[in-house]
Amino acid sequence: MTRLTFFGTGTSLGVPIIGCKCRVCSSPDPRDKRLRASALMESGGMKILIDAGPDFRTQMIRSGTSHLDAILLTHNHMDHVGGLDDVRALNYTDRHAIEIYAEPRVVSSLENVYAYAFAEHKYPGSPIWHIHRIDENPFVLRPTASSGQLEWVHDKGYFYRAADGTLRETGDIDAATERPGEAPGGVVVTPIRGMHSKMPVLGFRIGNIAYITDMSSIEDSELEKLRNLEHLTLNTVSYGPHHSHFSLPEAIGLARRIGARHTWLTHLSHNFPPYEEFVKELREMTGGDSVLPAFDGLVIED
Amino acid sequence: MTRLTFFGTGTSLGVPIIGCKCRVCSSPDPRDKRLRASALMESGGMKILIDAGPDFRTQMIRSGTSHLDAILLTHNHMDHVGGLDDVRALNYTDRHAIEIYAEPRVVSSLENVYAYAFAEHKYPGSPIWHIHRIDENPFVLRPTASSGQLEWVHDKGYFYRAADGTLRETGDIDAATERPGEAPGGVVVTPIRGMHSKMPVLGFRIGNIAYITDMSSIEDSELEKLRNLEHLTLNTVSYGPHHSHFSLPEAIGLARRIGARHTWLTHLSHNFPPYEEFVKELREMTGGDSVLPAFDGLVIED
Repeated sequence: MTRLTFFGTGTSLGVPIIGCKCRVCSSPDPRDKRLRASALMESGGMKILIDAGPDFRTQMIRSGTSHLDAILLTHNHMDHVGGLDDVRALNYTDRHAIEIYAEPRVVSSLENVYAYAFAEHKYPGSPIWHIHRIDENPFVLRPTASSGQLEWVHDKGYFYRAADGTLRETGDIDAATERPGEAPGGVVVTPIRGMHSKMPVLGFRIGNIAYITDMSSIEDSELEKLRNLEHLTLNTVSYGPHHSHFSLPEAIGLARRIGARHTWLTHLSHNFPPYEEFVKELREMTGGDSVLPAFDGLVIED
Repeated sequence: MTRLTFFGTGTSLGVPIIGCKCRVCSSPDPRDKRLRASALMESGGMKILIDAGPDFRTQMIRSGTSHLDAILLTHNHMDHVGGLDDVRALNYTDRHAIEIYAEPRVVSSLENVYAYAFAEHKYPGSPIWHIHRIDENPFVLRPTASSGQLEWVHDKGYFYRAADGTLRETGDIDAATERPGEAPGGVVVTPIRGMHSKMPVLGFRIGNIAYITDMSSIEDSELEKLRNLEHLTLNTVSYGPHHSHFSLPEAIGLARRIGARHTWLTHLSHNFPPYEEFVKELREMTGGDSVLPAFDGLVIED
């Protein structure tokens, strides 16, 4: 069984937008309150977060999530990585390093944005991450047990208890990425390559659910990875063409080509009407229920 | 009249901490829900935000704030600057660059964290800031009118309309900082120098209200700037000594020395008891009501 909970379904500024008085930003429907795009996937007993934007803390607390086995990053824009400092809370309460899976170019960006997390001598309380470098090829996830792997040293922050028993300051920032076939078991994640304007980004498939956000194009060859899906998410921010996101017609066209049983639209903006109206509009456009808007808190499973 | 609204009164992880089951993190009292430390000061018809951490968007929306004349930064830790990307919303809705006042060392850090906001050719939709470099000396703020200063160019983002009428890509990132006496009027801000462990930080005084956070020490000479205060805020995160914050006894001792009519504790953690209990404890410790815990949404004025 694979389950996906939408932690956030909004565009980079969220919905409502600060100061905006439009009818979507003023809508009382909770389904029109959209935090920044993020999703929790659950499979093989693991909790796997896709992206950790500025609403990470809020999303973890409101969903009652207190453990993460991995964080997968689609790309390095702030609305997708701006909450990575806040994983420190899990370092404290769950006592282990946070396993982060990202492309080398995304890791390079994190090294600038979160330089203190990569420092040899860290500021006390800095986040402790294990960075796994990935590419378009499938990789394997295994559960991360809550453990005493991290130990608090007064006024000096958390230190990493390595396998040889020594306390290390930085943790193993560079962790190995396991590939399918290396050992039995685990959950296989299949990255999907796409472009966000000129920036390469990744989507992720686990079981029969695929999560795609922040794409404006995808090569036909990658569609092979999206066969026989129960659920697919696709991003769109506007009716008309957009330089870095699928337009609504593009998203609907792509949903048809991929042919998942259900396609859920995410990264939505106030350019679309309030939820109920948007559902009606999509039913008219597609002649059915196969393409619908996602909303924060929606749970889908297969 | 000067007014301060506490936008957030929590330590870097906020209260509750993700995954923490303690009685403070589980408290149903809304005054025990603490977003990251930030305050809105209002003076001379202006709205002046101190710090913009990861909860910036939430804090702006829940307070109904849709205009800012300036953002003052105390220092560059993520819980104080992590929301600066989200000022883009005001670029959109309020159509002007956001005036940011910070020390040169803080600006250098922003150049790494938010490299795209300083790029010569910006990614469409990047935030547009005017950076004012400040030091420990007083400076003057003047209202920023909502205006057509920024203009949207399709798929290219917002461009800055300069005084000579030309559209510029980056805006004037380096803006002048006006000092008292240069022209009549305006609101004078007096920075207060202190240390956050080994990192120099600034507090800010406007009128008879001073906002200090993230200090562990302050030179006697700076206390001159804190005479005759109606309201003072001071940070504390623990009963015992802490490497980068005042302990509770240190904060109470400093409050006595400064002698503001009211001292409000902020940057509070789950190390202190739930709100009502903490109030009682402080009354017993200080023999009165002069030192009290702040809470999110509390408004003080003079």
